[in-house]
Amino acid sequence: MEINGVQIDDTFAEAFPIKMARVQITAVTERWALEAAREATGFGTSVIGCSAEAGIECIVDGSETVDGRPGANILICNMGYKNLENSLLFRLGQCVLTAPTTAAFSGMTEAEKQFDTGKKLSFFGDGYQKNENMNGRNVWKIPLMSGDFIVEQSFGAIEGIAGGNFLILGQNQMAALTAAEAAVDAIRKLKGTITPFPGGIVSSGSKVGSKYKFLKASTNTAFCTSLRSDNVCTLAEDVSSVFEIVINGVSREAIQASMKAGIHAACHVPGVLKITAANYEGKLGIHQFPLHRVLE
Amino acid sequence: MEINGVQIDDTFAEAFPIKMARVQITAVTERWALEAAREATGFGTSVIGCSAEAGIECIVDGSETVDGRPGANILICNMGYKNLENSLLFRLGQCVLTAPTTAAFSGMTEAEKQFDTGKKLSFFGDGYQKNENMNGRNVWKIPLMSGDFIVEQSFGAIEGIAGGNFLILGQNQMAALTAAEAAVDAIRKLKGTITPFPGGIVSSGSKVGSKYKFLKASTNTAFCTSLRSDNVCTLAEDVSSVFEIVINGVSREAIQASMKAGIHAACHVPGVLKITAANYEGKLGIHQFPLHRVLE
Amino acid sequence: MEINGVQIDDTFAEAFPIKMARVQITAVTERWALEAAREATGFGTSVIGCSAEAGIECIVDGSETVDGRPGANILICNMGYKNLENSLLFRLGQCVLTAPTTAAFSGMTEAEKQFDTGKKLSFFGDGYQKNENMNGRNVWKIPLMSGDFIVEQSFGAIEGIAGGNFLILGQNQMAALTAAEAAVDAIRKLKGTITPFPGGIVSSGSKVGSKYKFLKASTNTAFCTSLRSDNVCTLAEDVSSVFEIVINGVSREAIQASMKAGIHAACHVPGVLKITAANYEGKLGIHQFPLHRVLE
Amino acid sequence: MEINGVQIDDTFAEAFPIKMARVQITAVTERWALEAAREATGFGTSVIGCSAEAGIECIVDGSETVDGRPGANILICNMGYKNLENSLLFRLGQCVLTAPTTAAFSGMTEAEKQFDTGKKLSFFGDGYQKNENMNGRNVWKIPLMSGDFIVEQSFGAIEGIAGGNFLILGQNQMAALTAAEAAVDAIRKLKGTITPFPGGIVSSGSKVGSKYKFLKASTNTAFCTSLRSDNVCTLAEDVSSVFEIVINGVSREAIQASMKAGIHAACHVPGVLKITAANYEGKLGIHQFPLHRVLE
Repeated sequence: MEINGVQIDDTFAEAFPIKMARVQITAVTERWALEAAREATGFGTSVIGCSAEAGIECIVDGSETVDGRPGANILICNMGYKNLENSLLFRLGQCVLTAPTTAAFSGMTEAEKQFDTGKKLSFFGDGYQKNENMNGRNVWKIPLMSGDFIVEQSFGAIEGIAGGNFLILGQNQMAALTAAEAAVDAIRKLKGTITPFPGGIVSSGSKVGSKYKFLKASTNTAFCTSLRSDNVCTLAEDVSSVFEIVINGVSREAIQASMKAGIHAACHVPGVLKITAANYEGKLGIHQFPLHRVLE
Repeated sequence: MEINGVQIDDTFAEAFPIKMARVQITAVTERWALEAAREATGFGTSVIGCSAEAGIECIVDGSETVDGRPGANILICNMGYKNLENSLLFRLGQCVLTAPTTAAFSGMTEAEKQFDTGKKLSFFGDGYQKNENMNGRNVWKIPLMSGDFIVEQSFGAIEGIAGGNFLILGQNQMAALTAAEAAVDAIRKLKGTITPFPGGIVSSGSKVGSKYKFLKASTNTAFCTSLRSDNVCTLAEDVSSVFEIVINGVSREAIQASMKAGIHAACHVPGVLKITAANYEGKLGIHQFPLHRVLE
Repeated sequence: MEINGVQIDDTFAEAFPIKMARVQITAVTERWALEAAREATGFGTSVIGCSAEAGIECIVDGSETVDGRPGANILICNMGYKNLENSLLFRLGQCVLTAPTTAAFSGMTEAEKQFDTGKKLSFFGDGYQKNENMNGRNVWKIPLMSGDFIVEQSFGAIEGIAGGNFLILGQNQMAALTAAEAAVDAIRKLKGTITPFPGGIVSSGSKVGSKYKFLKASTNTAFCTSLRSDNVCTLAEDVSSVFEIVINGVSREAIQASMKAGIHAACHVPGVLKITAANYEGKLGIHQFPLHRVLE
Repeated sequence: MEINGVQIDDTFAEAFPIKMARVQITAVTERWALEAAREATGFGTSVIGCSAEAGIECIVDGSETVDGRPGANILICNMGYKNLENSLLFRLGQCVLTAPTTAAFSGMTEAEKQFDTGKKLSFFGDGYQKNENMNGRNVWKIPLMSGDFIVEQSFGAIEGIAGGNFLILGQNQMAALTAAEAAVDAIRKLKGTITPFPGGIVSSGSKVGSKYKFLKASTNTAFCTSLRSDNVCTLAEDVSSVFEIVINGVSREAIQASMKAGIHAACHVPGVLKITAANYEGKLGIHQFPLHRVLE
């Protein structure tokens, strides 16, 4: 299979279940909503070493938000609901409540699982917090020095999928990187997914396990082109750099749509040689996304 | 005392000692260095609920960096050295090693306190990591799918100061917020300090303690203008919003310079009525920054 | 009439016919498409002193563009078709052909009026340009040092409307300015319109004519709050600053939708006191947009 | 000669004299100063088809500006002083006076050549403009709807140099483009120069003349790698894309410093094969910048 002359490997991405909550952050302008969203989703690339995996799902305008102001939807992901509840409490409390002019609403009101994060945050009001109804939502109004902070009482969460992915093999590092950027541009236009790594891109794809027993993951040596002389790299001679796009999403459909849009975008960048995907013989997870089927 | 017609209160900012490390992140372009720096300093506003306080200190060009590429210096802060070592390990490992084209160097090579963070990260190379000398620095070269990651063996840390601050009192929320933005613009031009809150600005200044025993800090009720009718707010009638700028720095001098530049910038914004500072009768810390002396 | 407590004047915006062309600029990434789009629409606020009125209509992703790459649609406006043809030739030739990785396609293929701008630009190929069919479009491929530039043979143009507008009256300058920014955020989400002034905002609303015979327009003295002591300003005492949003669009419907979205967004910003519109007793143009009807 | 393994051709850049003025634009925040600066320097790549060549020279903070607010310095260039005077009048009148919260000051107060642009713009005040002294500058205060606009009476201009340049030859388009971006990053840190093309980069380097008599310049066929099969391209086989950086500056020294910084930055990007420069047997201009001497 080829797209725009770029070969698409007949393989699949391996992914795993994760718990996730969507938070709608609004502010006086889109710019301030994004400032809060970036802070709240920072240091959130992988649960291997971060307290959560997090990213900006999409920008939303006043016609789509609870309070009619511009906003950004973010997704926060953890392996278990207990950790997710903590992530919500600390990321909203430290990065959204503290940010200029923001409010925070649940983006998963229908979910069975609900956390009373807003209620817990409301105690910051030191007795002056007030429970109110706002456009059908049960919210807390917390007095701040800069104005009132509005936060929804409950935040819903669901089981989604983490680790959807594809790999971009390039003639050189800049071709592969620009293709990765184009892929992330395309994925950001779609709802239901995030790409939690820096700029949406992974420079350091890993394999499960290591020669060091204290490490659960290590560099994906078979794809490291600087290890050619060590006879470890299995990539074709013309490839000199590989970037990975990792996608977390609310559903299989959302991840498939983002993989499709991202791969198509990457294949329009000159110097891209091949698209493949990362899988780990089932050691990582139960979900499989075959590239050829995703691209149908 | 007045600047540009804005009254400067005769009071002081109360601050406290904190441990901090500077990391120089370089990349193929300034844009990619900033992507990594933002991810590595995210979810890093206050040690009350974040694993560290962190921010971008300044952008550096090729003439100032170890490898001649453009970069960004960041500061990472924790109350103790043990936590700071963890912060370095996880924030560099999860947010810089994973970011496209980056390298990471110590920005405090002379410090007495040194952590072997680079050595620990090097095990990700699964045996293929190499120790090298690069422009006088002892670095590890770790093979990645996208290219090699260079990280310095040791990262230095010092005792600095957290909680330098001033408050901007505005005729309305947008005047105070724009003044806060102008203040942060000015502070970002200076080396030696960060403003760790979202966009550099705190919307939710707090007091020490709360009526709820489980809370160490709660909203600064005396400055909440929406609590006027409760006879709690002590601000003048014409003030309707207050934003705080919190500054962490490597030294008293650095914090003073940033407070001075930030206050001057804020006082050029129409609708700003007064500048004051937050202090807590010594409950927060041992450092005092009197506004009038800082502005001399 | 009120929105969110902000009074909406019962008046109308006065606008006039203008000729306009839409150009779809694509590039390897959204960022590079936007760089070209910004350069091509720069120095393009008002035909009073610029060679055209121009702005970015919207960002488009690969599913919406002719060549499947990310892009930006721009609108270029002139009073007559002859000037518009010149604007297309020079703005595309100097700012898009010269920009990294771009291509340029017509965004009004169905229009009766068509200019052979692409054919004219193709001569830059010095005999090596080639005429081709690309996804149903008749394009020229011009060899450049950096790669080939693709430009459509013909660019269509229609008669649209310029000067749709509304005015934001604020308690102070920062409130009115932030509301203007929020309005522009909202308008940019909609297709069919541009806000050609810097950042989408006019700081210097004008009246038709002047005491100086050589000037066709001068400052709108009745709305200048610094002229209160001269008894010239007719605004209420509590207003201290007024910003104007000027909107050009492809149709009455497009301008109405943008006015509605922009006004709603502005009315969510604290410190906004009133919305009105600019009209000139028919001296400016034949189109009227009554605020109350637009907001129905 | 080599830098970082990249060959530097032993050739020179050919440049020509041009008239230029520096304008200091200030605003309430850096962001608004940049909005005005971008609009005022847009559609300003080459005097072949634009009314001026223009660009942002540098960002300046409150300690460097006339009114103590943040700002941006821009350079506007024309072949003759008469055209430059027009450019100042129209670009400041249409793009700076109209932009939120801006002021405009001369950045060349010592120059012999002075234009009374500020005085001319002041008539927009319709008789309510006032002449004042502001921090030693002779300025006009023009009442606007949004507040007062401050503009200096006189703007100075000098003879500078246009067309300083170098070419980046890459293994593929993305390598050459990223190197060009890195070069522009480095040049933007230096005062005294601009890179007027979109994003600072030229994708369409030209030769003087054409087979078509009506064209003064056409694509630089000898460097077009898609013309290899036509036996027109003279580049080595491994080169597949070439981008040019064009630099205008206030002096030989300024252009040399920017060429040096830009070339060094480009040579740090993987996939860059060679640096050369464009010259035209003296047909373009009298200034020569030999690469090896510039890099000493």
